[in-house]
Amino acid sequence: MAEDRYLEDFSVGQTFRSGAITVRSEQIKWFASQFDPQPFHLDEAAAAASLFGGLVASGWHTAALTMRMIVDSEIKIAGGLIGAGTDELKWPRPVRPGDTLHTVSEVLEVRLSKSRPHQGIVKMRTQTLNQEDQPVLILVANLIVPRRPG
Amino acid sequence: MAEDRYLEDFSVGQTFRSGAITVRSEQIKWFASQFDPQPFHLDEAAAAASLFGGLVASGWHTAALTMRMIVDSEIKIAGGLIGAGTDELKWPRPVRPGDTLHTVSEVLEVRLSKSRPHQGIVKMRTQTLNQEDQPVLILVANLIVPRRPG
Repeated sequence: MAEDRYLEDFSVGQTFRSGAITVRSEQIKWFASQFDPQPFHLDEAAAAASLFGGLVASGWHTAALTMRMIVDSEIKIAGGLIGAGTDELKWPRPVRPGDTLHTVSEVLEVRLSKSRPHQGIVKMRTQTLNQEDQPVLILVANLIVPRRPG
Repeated sequence: MAEDRYLEDFSVGQTFRSGAITVRSEQIKWFASQFDPQPFHLDEAAAAASLFGGLVASGWHTAALTMRMIVDSEIKIAGGLIGAGTDELKWPRPVRPGDTLHTVSEVLEVRLSKSRPHQGIVKMRTQTLNQEDQPVLILVANLIVPRRPG
């Protein structure tokens, strides 16, 4: 736990890059069957006839994979990665089978909580990029981060 | 497909209520193992010692379940439910094992696209409520909706 970060360990402009995940069509279809059962996430032929022109991952699948990459990255916050909410979440382009994704997160703001003096908020922008470094998801999240004890 | 809604079928103030989903601890742990492997989503004992005081669902799990309830609701958009992005996404309180959730969505805005005259945007606020009608997720999403052909 010695590596866990406290509020004092974050500063504006810090960046964190995650490892990569390759997205497979079976995973796209499975996630969709559970959470977003629409033709363009479930079936290649139906997807070819849709707005997307082929199978694409649910945006919520891309968001969940983004969370996984952030959790596995070096952004280790004492007490865990807990979001108070998001300022922005968008999907500039779809994720397709075979895409390899990674995240790059940048600290936009670090501030003390007014109401809870033992913690603060780190505002972080994460871009999830595909193998051509094109953003597929942009997330600005406000993370609850404890102050260093003592 | 006769029931599918086009842009002309939406008006400000319309509301849609979904069916219900009960969230089980096994599902919470499974989702977390795939996408958000943190102790308060994976293990009751570790969760009891966390900020949450017990096992809670990943916020991304709550978001994915929200999408499922919206897809299964009567908001049937021609061409599918496709989000251009969100204006707001927050989690006012956690989801715990045994919670029964449903969604209530309200149309906030309906407008034509300036650049794509065959479609428009419906801005919709969805609240995901637990069995005590307390919000566990609030989402304001901008949905791409085609105009009625002809």
